[in-house]
Amino acid sequence: MDMYKTLREEAWEANMEIPRRKLAIYTWGNVSAFDPALGVFAIKPSGVPYDALTPESMVVVDLDGAVAAGKLNPSSDTETHRVLYREFVRLAGGAPVPVKGITHTHSPYAVAFAQARRPVPVYGTTHADHGAGEIPCTEYMDEESVKNDYELETGNLIAETFRKQGVNPFDIQMVLVAGHGPFTWGKDAAQSVYHAAVLEEVCKMAHITLTLNPEQKPLPDYIIRKHWERKHGDGAYYGQKN
Amino acid sequence: MDMYKTLREEAWEANMEIPRRKLAIYTWGNVSAFDPALGVFAIKPSGVPYDALTPESMVVVDLDGAVAAGKLNPSSDTETHRVLYREFVRLAGGAPVPVKGITHTHSPYAVAFAQARRPVPVYGTTHADHGAGEIPCTEYMDEESVKNDYELETGNLIAETFRKQGVNPFDIQMVLVAGHGPFTWGKDAAQSVYHAAVLEEVCKMAHITLTLNPEQKPLPDYIIRKHWERKHGDGAYYGQKN
Amino acid sequence: MDMYKTLREEAWEANMEIPRRKLAIYTWGNVSAFDPALGVFAIKPSGVPYDALTPESMVVVDLDGAVAAGKLNPSSDTETHRVLYREFVRLAGGAPVPVKGITHTHSPYAVAFAQARRPVPVYGTTHADHGAGEIPCTEYMDEESVKNDYELETGNLIAETFRKQGVNPFDIQMVLVAGHGPFTWGKDAAQSVYHAAVLEEVCKMAHITLTLNPEQKPLPDYIIRKHWERKHGDGAYYGQKN
Amino acid sequence: MDMYKTLREEAWEANMEIPRRKLAIYTWGNVSAFDPALGVFAIKPSGVPYDALTPESMVVVDLDGAVAAGKLNPSSDTETHRVLYREFVRLAGGAPVPVKGITHTHSPYAVAFAQARRPVPVYGTTHADHGAGEIPCTEYMDEESVKNDYELETGNLIAETFRKQGVNPFDIQMVLVAGHGPFTWGKDAAQSVYHAAVLEEVCKMAHITLTLNPEQKPLPDYIIRKHWERKHGDGAYYGQKN
Repeated sequence: MDMYKTLREEAWEANMEIPRRKLAIYTWGNVSAFDPALGVFAIKPSGVPYDALTPESMVVVDLDGAVAAGKLNPSSDTETHRVLYREFVRLAGGAPVPVKGITHTHSPYAVAFAQARRPVPVYGTTHADHGAGEIPCTEYMDEESVKNDYELETGNLIAETFRKQGVNPFDIQMVLVAGHGPFTWGKDAAQSVYHAAVLEEVCKMAHITLTLNPEQKPLPDYIIRKHWERKHGDGAYYGQKN
Repeated sequence: MDMYKTLREEAWEANMEIPRRKLAIYTWGNVSAFDPALGVFAIKPSGVPYDALTPESMVVVDLDGAVAAGKLNPSSDTETHRVLYREFVRLAGGAPVPVKGITHTHSPYAVAFAQARRPVPVYGTTHADHGAGEIPCTEYMDEESVKNDYELETGNLIAETFRKQGVNPFDIQMVLVAGHGPFTWGKDAAQSVYHAAVLEEVCKMAHITLTLNPEQKPLPDYIIRKHWERKHGDGAYYGQKN
Repeated sequence: MDMYKTLREEAWEANMEIPRRKLAIYTWGNVSAFDPALGVFAIKPSGVPYDALTPESMVVVDLDGAVAAGKLNPSSDTETHRVLYREFVRLAGGAPVPVKGITHTHSPYAVAFAQARRPVPVYGTTHADHGAGEIPCTEYMDEESVKNDYELETGNLIAETFRKQGVNPFDIQMVLVAGHGPFTWGKDAAQSVYHAAVLEEVCKMAHITLTLNPEQKPLPDYIIRKHWERKHGDGAYYGQKN
Repeated sequence: MDMYKTLREEAWEANMEIPRRKLAIYTWGNVSAFDPALGVFAIKPSGVPYDALTPESMVVVDLDGAVAAGKLNPSSDTETHRVLYREFVRLAGGAPVPVKGITHTHSPYAVAFAQARRPVPVYGTTHADHGAGEIPCTEYMDEESVKNDYELETGNLIAETFRKQGVNPFDIQMVLVAGHGPFTWGKDAAQSVYHAAVLEEVCKMAHITLTLNPEQKPLPDYIIRKHWERKHGDGAYYGQKN
């Protein structure tokens, strides 16, 4: 009996969305699924093509970075995921609730914004439906951090960027790491990869918008709030009640 | 017996064109089909992915906004559709004839023009074949309207834009809502989604044209008229006689 | 027995390449195949979607514009094809040899160059492999010609552009009609649609090139000649000998 | 018994990746696989569409340019491949080790950089993961070389570019030939076509980056080194140990 079976299946299923949604070619993206009760997350093995993945090949890692189960090396970005599961926690009803899925891709429009080191302003409702503010872009990591513990420091850099800019990672569930690419997260692995697809589409739209009007200003805040609230606010009315 | 069976099938079939034509990802677009005799339209349920849709899942709504049939919540954009069915009516042979299909998508090139708040001038015959003038872009909605009744006011904003600019919604069957995206319509649901695909292609062509020549002027009016008339005028000779 | 069976099949097969190569959506492109011995060409019927086409649905038209066989209306661009079959003839071994296939599409990059009214300079060998000089763009047609006989005058405009610019239509088998889109031709219908796909790819490459360097100069003429000659010159050595 | 069976299959398999990865349309790309022990490479036949290729149709050529096996003409770019197999050799453990696979494509973003004659700076980690420096672009070939022995001189031009710029062809396994397009190589045919796909993706990302910020500077060198080393350095930890 594999106590991590469900978690591995969730992680595997979400990883398979990466090629389906064309968010990365070859092996250039990874998703993890976190189970706070078990204190572990399941993540893609490093350098394995998507069509060779199985639920069993997912590597299970605990919050101290130790491999709890799995024969393969976990993704080289594992330490980044680990830091974010530790950092991105909120209180709900007095109990700490972390993000439960993280995705990293090299989708081209999101990478281009990261390479140009531009945050993505809210130019339209497609963006506002998924985040009530601009998508932050980090600074380049400093040389010491790169040499010291690169992937762990990538997580720290993201967390630090949100702290410094006063952004709530449960309102904006996406970031661009300067010169590298996007990380996204959510309430489960599936939502984190959904956010990766949203981010790519939003960046593509923003790119075309900027070629049409390089001076484009963001959407008025009252429209941003409306679109965010109708999907995510207390009185949200988008979708079906379950 | 479902008295709305045909209407629901028409709406379902047209909604399925959205992913086929790549006009929106996930659940980001909706089509409705209107039957003036029954006084109702069938529309996509809110937040349901296309591959989970069935004809039966379409929600039937009357012109006062009441759900006439269907178990699911209708699209969050239902009020916009409703206003347009009320507003976009013409007289033909003394009888009022409304548009009978409406489509909303988040296709990226059309969204980008909406985000840049640029109407789309007639740069070529691809455009002129489907509309004899530029595709209007609304202003941003004012704060009071957003707070008051956002989706209904989106319909009012579109209708007001056509009135103010003196545009006949049976000549130009497309609009860009500033900061949001496209709405298109037609003589039935299928034509409204056809117009959504046309608009995306025309916006893509206009975007490339503008990167090649930012000062590009519209096509001479006599060529615009010729292309419009050969497909839609009294002496139209494009296509087959039925 | 249908004496036009082979010609219709050739035309049908080439028309089916349009959606396969994504050169037009819906019904927005047409190919014809010409048989000089029979004095007729087979062309797509007007306004019929590609997946509804059959070889039998192709319309056979003679060089005076009369329908020789077929129940449907021929393409609205038939007169343009007819003029080009009459105009684009060369002498080979003392006998007149016309082009034997013509394609018209609305592929987006080629349309954009036509809308921006820019000829396409030879920026690289991809272009030079298929034409030894820039791809001409016509002027806008004058109002009288548009009103008089639009599609026939489109053919005249193309032929006139080649004459005025001293371009040999057997060296450059492509043209952009200003504000409209591309026409291409070749030794048979299949080659004409091949040229339509080449033109779209070349225009896409030219567009990206111009965004990288708006002042880009054409390839040196000696490289253009080399690439043209190795595929099309007397000592051509590309491909297999049959 | 075909002593080249394995080599031909490797070459065929890699050539079939070209249409799968959309790196060239029609016949516009070729891959070869080199066996140093046999002193021959297997390469695509000239002008044959990918879906007509079989392992047996691959042409086997020796390092003097003589056809060792195969009934068809080899790719017109064979001489370029031959020069690079002779030139791109390194010492490993005292023994000479050549590159063992070469790919040429006409993928549009890479071609556009070649047409604009711009080397591709390292704007991000996607690039740094596959090469620790900018991707060189050659000068235009001079007229005498073009007239003398064009394809062989293309190989010389590439080798000369790497020598002049002091670039190690085992660190940067890609080049842009000015006005023409990309050549890539690797430890086998499969890796060379992988590098062709990487180059296209990197050029697409660089293009979008430059439209977002025309003055974009390269990634700091310490990040470039980190990404290169974690995949290719002595202490590489990306992927699985075999």
